[in-house]
Amino acid sequence: MSTIDRFELIEQCSKNYVLAVNDTLNVISGKWKLPIIASLFDGEKRFKELEDAIDKISPRMLSKELKELELNGIVNRNVHNTTPVLIEYELTESGHNLKSVIDAMVQWGLTHRHAVINYD
Amino acid sequence: MSTIDRFELIEQCSKNYVLAVNDTLNVISGKWKLPIIASLFDGEKRFKELEDAIDKISPRMLSKELKELELNGIVNRNVHNTTPVLIEYELTESGHNLKSVIDAMVQWGLTHRHAVINYD
Repeated sequence: MSTIDRFELIEQCSKNYVLAVNDTLNVISGKWKLPIIASLFDGEKRFKELEDAIDKISPRMLSKELKELELNGIVNRNVHNTTPVLIEYELTESGHNLKSVIDAMVQWGLTHRHAVINYD
Repeated sequence: MSTIDRFELIEQCSKNYVLAVNDTLNVISGKWKLPIIASLFDGEKRFKELEDAIDKISPRMLSKELKELELNGIVNRNVHNTTPVLIEYELTESGHNLKSVIDAMVQWGLTHRHAVINYD
């Protein structure tokens, strides 16, 4: 491998690294994504159950956010063939795998908040 | 502990959890924070070294981002009493502790990007 190739490889890896983190940030950024994901960690829920679980979210906003999470492959919308039709939302495997990211962020955030308070 | 107290406690914990994650998101969101933090993982650097290490960042933007990271307790600005004066930037302990968060995000992002490509 020439020096140029190696340099390009390192640059490519570094770009993928940044893109990977940005993907993760995009998926969980905003006011509502995280509460919705957290609500679904313990199992699938109906729209009304999510609405009740998440403080102050409007049905319109919940619908919009669920659609975005579905498009990003984080949430599945399951239509059960019953009468009346039952629609439930559940995390995909990618969605469940966000737990380790969120846990790391909570851990850091709690420690850091503490540090910030000490600096005041 | 009464039922009301317990409910309030759970609600308070849940709020702290969300605040903690939002703190973490705020610190690392945006185009430049992460490349700057990543550049400092292997030790302190001068302004010019950071400018060279980070692709396409302007001196003005680098200066702005470093100030924000300093205010958030992520970066220390060390002024060495030499002639000429040497100024170096290094991660604080909080800054170094972001590594586990960023590693989790890279890991998830890389897996998720792969999943997204498969869905296409």
